[in-house]
Amino acid sequence: MKALQYRTAGSAPEVVEIPVPQVGPGQILIKVTAAGVCHSDEFVMNMPAEQVAPMLPLTLGHEGAGIVHELGEGVTEFQLGDAVAVYGPWGCGRCQNCAAGKENYCSNAAADGIRPPGLGAPGAMAEYMLVDNARHLVPLEGLDPVANVSLTDAGLTPYHAIKNSLPKLGAGTTAVVIGTGGLGHVGIQILRALSGATVIALDVTEGKLELAREVGAHHAILSDSGAVAAIKELTGGRGANAVFDFVGIQPTVNIAAAAVAAEGDVTIVGIGGGMLPVGFGSIAYDAAVRTPYWGSRSELIEVLEMARRGQITVEVETFALKEAPTVYERLHAGDIRGRAVLLPNG
Amino acid sequence: MKALQYRTAGSAPEVVEIPVPQVGPGQILIKVTAAGVCHSDEFVMNMPAEQVAPMLPLTLGHEGAGIVHELGEGVTEFQLGDAVAVYGPWGCGRCQNCAAGKENYCSNAAADGIRPPGLGAPGAMAEYMLVDNARHLVPLEGLDPVANVSLTDAGLTPYHAIKNSLPKLGAGTTAVVIGTGGLGHVGIQILRALSGATVIALDVTEGKLELAREVGAHHAILSDSGAVAAIKELTGGRGANAVFDFVGIQPTVNIAAAAVAAEGDVTIVGIGGGMLPVGFGSIAYDAAVRTPYWGSRSELIEVLEMARRGQITVEVETFALKEAPTVYERLHAGDIRGRAVLLPNG
Amino acid sequence: MKALQYRTAGSAPEVVEIPVPQVGPGQILIKVTAAGVCHSDEFVMNMPAEQVAPMLPLTLGHEGAGIVHELGEGVTEFQLGDAVAVYGPWGCGRCQNCAAGKENYCSNAAADGIRPPGLGAPGAMAEYMLVDNARHLVPLEGLDPVANVSLTDAGLTPYHAIKNSLPKLGAGTTAVVIGTGGLGHVGIQILRALSGATVIALDVTEGKLELAREVGAHHAILSDSGAVAAIKELTGGRGANAVFDFVGIQPTVNIAAAAVAAEGDVTIVGIGGGMLPVGFGSIAYDAAVRTPYWGSRSELIEVLEMARRGQITVEVETFALKEAPTVYERLHAGDIRGRAVLLPNG
Amino acid sequence: MKALQYRTAGSAPEVVEIPVPQVGPGQILIKVTAAGVCHSDEFVMNMPAEQVAPMLPLTLGHEGAGIVHELGEGVTEFQLGDAVAVYGPWGCGRCQNCAAGKENYCSNAAADGIRPPGLGAPGAMAEYMLVDNARHLVPLEGLDPVANVSLTDAGLTPYHAIKNSLPKLGAGTTAVVIGTGGLGHVGIQILRALSGATVIALDVTEGKLELAREVGAHHAILSDSGAVAAIKELTGGRGANAVFDFVGIQPTVNIAAAAVAAEGDVTIVGIGGGMLPVGFGSIAYDAAVRTPYWGSRSELIEVLEMARRGQITVEVETFALKEAPTVYERLHAGDIRGRAVLLPNG
Repeated sequence: MKALQYRTAGSAPEVVEIPVPQVGPGQILIKVTAAGVCHSDEFVMNMPAEQVAPMLPLTLGHEGAGIVHELGEGVTEFQLGDAVAVYGPWGCGRCQNCAAGKENYCSNAAADGIRPPGLGAPGAMAEYMLVDNARHLVPLEGLDPVANVSLTDAGLTPYHAIKNSLPKLGAGTTAVVIGTGGLGHVGIQILRALSGATVIALDVTEGKLELAREVGAHHAILSDSGAVAAIKELTGGRGANAVFDFVGIQPTVNIAAAAVAAEGDVTIVGIGGGMLPVGFGSIAYDAAVRTPYWGSRSELIEVLEMARRGQITVEVETFALKEAPTVYERLHAGDIRGRAVLLPNG
Repeated sequence: MKALQYRTAGSAPEVVEIPVPQVGPGQILIKVTAAGVCHSDEFVMNMPAEQVAPMLPLTLGHEGAGIVHELGEGVTEFQLGDAVAVYGPWGCGRCQNCAAGKENYCSNAAADGIRPPGLGAPGAMAEYMLVDNARHLVPLEGLDPVANVSLTDAGLTPYHAIKNSLPKLGAGTTAVVIGTGGLGHVGIQILRALSGATVIALDVTEGKLELAREVGAHHAILSDSGAVAAIKELTGGRGANAVFDFVGIQPTVNIAAAAVAAEGDVTIVGIGGGMLPVGFGSIAYDAAVRTPYWGSRSELIEVLEMARRGQITVEVETFALKEAPTVYERLHAGDIRGRAVLLPNG
Repeated sequence: MKALQYRTAGSAPEVVEIPVPQVGPGQILIKVTAAGVCHSDEFVMNMPAEQVAPMLPLTLGHEGAGIVHELGEGVTEFQLGDAVAVYGPWGCGRCQNCAAGKENYCSNAAADGIRPPGLGAPGAMAEYMLVDNARHLVPLEGLDPVANVSLTDAGLTPYHAIKNSLPKLGAGTTAVVIGTGGLGHVGIQILRALSGATVIALDVTEGKLELAREVGAHHAILSDSGAVAAIKELTGGRGANAVFDFVGIQPTVNIAAAAVAAEGDVTIVGIGGGMLPVGFGSIAYDAAVRTPYWGSRSELIEVLEMARRGQITVEVETFALKEAPTVYERLHAGDIRGRAVLLPNG
Repeated sequence: MKALQYRTAGSAPEVVEIPVPQVGPGQILIKVTAAGVCHSDEFVMNMPAEQVAPMLPLTLGHEGAGIVHELGEGVTEFQLGDAVAVYGPWGCGRCQNCAAGKENYCSNAAADGIRPPGLGAPGAMAEYMLVDNARHLVPLEGLDPVANVSLTDAGLTPYHAIKNSLPKLGAGTTAVVIGTGGLGHVGIQILRALSGATVIALDVTEGKLELAREVGAHHAILSDSGAVAAIKELTGGRGANAVFDFVGIQPTVNIAAAAVAAEGDVTIVGIGGGMLPVGFGSIAYDAAVRTPYWGSRSELIEVLEMARRGQITVEVETFALKEAPTVYERLHAGDIRGRAVLLPNG
């Protein structure tokens, strides 16, 4: 089968021919319909050679959806032909967090060497993908796999981040979304659907702000030196009850720190390397700063249900597998509106 | 001044002439712009004579808004001319609940004989109203008093009820509103603005259902013997994550009990005398049944902010003070669309 | 192998000889060390003949612990010889609740005919027990199986009930435990370990109250006509912030309804057939009444960790399998202190 | 009357003679029984001269308790002779936070120039103290003012910090307390009384660790380079679910950052100038870092109730007002065990 692999540290990923995986007891083989392209792939491909070497060659793709193609012995949860999405943050399945479906915070994954598909284990950018356990699949139940595959990360990650802040986003509140790309433009829709907050979106180009307004932001403003003052003015001086930074570079975390209200939340989702120093006087009282990671299995079910109800729609551009190297270049240049999706069997 | 008083147990309320109240230290006199008409007034007027006698004559009106007309000594929180709404559930101001602004659950009000204006103390259906403490007023800050006076009860009561259930009304959930009158039609708007729930409204006439749809209900169905089956079908068999019963008679609480999902909420707001028996097998597992009362002072501030943002609008019909007796007749007949408001100085 | 089975509706359970179960892919066979005896077994044995008939013959025992004896193909989570406890409330493993480890509230169990071991599926009162999936086992990790087997229900059920109320059991609060037997005496310990509440225990005999005091109740009083007044006096007139009724008969739910404070919780755990009517005036404002069922898988892990830390200890009396019929007689007579445990291989 | 005042920036505070304050409408004069000495006083006395000058001369003391001595007109909440504690974080009384009793997070205090007693307004280290509003007093109801005055800050501040983390401190969890002085030794008791957490205390001397153990810490270890490893070992490698840093210097916030578990809380209470940089990879996933400030009025009522129930006891050393300058020297040298209390009328 064809697969997009990152093979040599520092080089671009390549489309190669590899064998279709064998299916063992309890495992499931899916024929991949769609695989999402994400900034995190770049993060892996930018890791130092000595760090990434043990994973190579790596079939990319941590957002995957497809059709159940073969069932290992003992699998009773799915049938051949079922349309499914892959739950990506794999864990041990035994620890307390895994027992609650929170495999993204598995206590044993690091020690046991368990890595998500596309970020260590073979991913979805291939004609077929092996899923180790039925608990790592979620039924699509009527959702279009191409339009919705990105929800497995670009939907689940902002959803998890936002869900944690919902108790602070009731009546009379304001949420700020920094970065309105793949994750951010879904985040805006989630905030509009689930919270009472006024949503202020920040990004660096008018085109991005236009997308933000289209998907529901009440205000969309440039992420420049006047952003904090604008947020303060829109909030009567109090600041935002939650700031979601989907970029995470130093300038954006600085905005987040200055814009949050007392008892608010700053959630740094983007892995841009920014650091927000928290100490007495550096930020509003009782504002909580954190860096979440992906989401839980039941949260993925919830995200898919939101799509089913029309509450969220991913802005998607599709590509053939062989176009992938070009797609990463455009992604890096900030030239993808919403999310890019590969069609390995398309 | 003119005031609408309930003077004789069993008789209709009357417009009478009484003295303008004297203002003591710490007290505030407001010139009443608007006073809301509520089913709870009927509840008081239907109380047994021996029970209600000690309160008579009673100036009605527990929903009030007006202009600060005179300030007692030591009042620093307000200025003459400020437009204000009255926070109605008065408490002792000392107990733990009052310390948190939850005077609706004051531990001492019953023992100390403290009663809300219009429900024991002199209310807002008069040209002037005496408010005992600055903490019982909330600034209107730009809101129209006539259009929004009803928010002090018909907004605050559903808001408090719903706020308690918001953690259960995230992605993929359903809320049911039974009774789409004064409180219910505001409740629907609150649910739409603050939760991710699909909202199903129930009432007994097509006219009421039409209002429900206008204010945002996704589904509006007759509150008859087929209602439970309809709710089950709309929720894939699981039932509703929260049911708010703004009627509270036996048929409606029966629907609520049968329609709620496991771990859902049934909140009986209407004081219609219905009783929901809770025991093993009588209702879904871990569904919580409760009867709240009004709301807290900070919740009232939140409700008014929702109105300021255009998230809730009360359907209002206005009347002169002298029309009040007729208004209660129409209310009793179910012939008020939304909320009736009296204009004591209009 | 020997097994205790309920074979004929209306008759006592019998020890019989049946084949050791075969192990399929994904399944696990455990050699049973200990199996707890519970009032719920009686509930099943008291079900009408036509209702219970389809389950017969039924190997009893929904509290089980043992040693992993045989592993089906594809099972990687456990090793032969591991000491494990059985997580009893089995669900479909696919629905949203199961995805969060809350199989006790599985959306599909009823429709799919999935029943817990000992309550429909073959249970733990046998020399060997077949467990259908690794997710239904939790490692004991050093805990004595005989002393702790009852935690799988008599620990997990009160833990789940109490955990839901912990936000209401902070500083200055009071919890009431009605019934200090198998579940209640563990519940008292959980409340003492996890909450700031003063704990008041109620039961019908001095012996039961003595056990309540031994395990940590601050007050232990007779569950008679003076109980409500005693609770009110101990709480300065406000009532209890949470009442856990582990009996659930009409007199105890009546006490619960009268004893709970505004915004408190009444949790009816015992399946004694009592019904608590909730409506305006029947109970304190915003007191929530509910009937939970068992608990989640991660909650079981938490309960076992509490035992490991010495925060809870089950009062246990052990018996051979053949003594089981007598044990049920004593249980019915209220003549078991704490929990009875059978040793099928003892 | 005698008062301890900070008069000249950079000099030690002095005991001076000043007039007894006049009581206006709504105000209350208390005869001070006890006034607590706090590191925050030092913080004020170390402020740059130009910053502190506008407040001078400043009567110190933000922890106060006494007897109601004179009532202004319109005060109905208290009687002459009532024993009371002062709620210190004064706010405007009108904003949403004040409406909920959270004056510590008043939206208008800074703009309106409202400052707490002892930290801008005249404080409790004087024979008499003027309190501007009845809502700033809480009844002691039987509590000894000398033994408990420190609860108004050294109890309330850790209580507020800990209360926010209680949902993360259930079964199987661990809490770390860094700094076991005035606030920390009360914090340990609060954690033991209200949470299920194992408590690990850190400090720099064996004497401090001894106090930590006396008040209930399960483990007390030196706050040195081995502290993080020790915490990891005690938590099976996962880290602590909450870390409360009552010191807040760079070495302690570093320990906090390294010791916290995924989804845990780091709460920096001490104003030692340390900064914790939060970004991807700098701290466990979803660990929330924040800097709270004091607490709400209803939380103070809860803290006092804990003392009444014997759940917390402040380790107190008492001094005459004239000894105050020496007391601050000892405090600075780390030579006060627990909390120092002045007796202005003693």
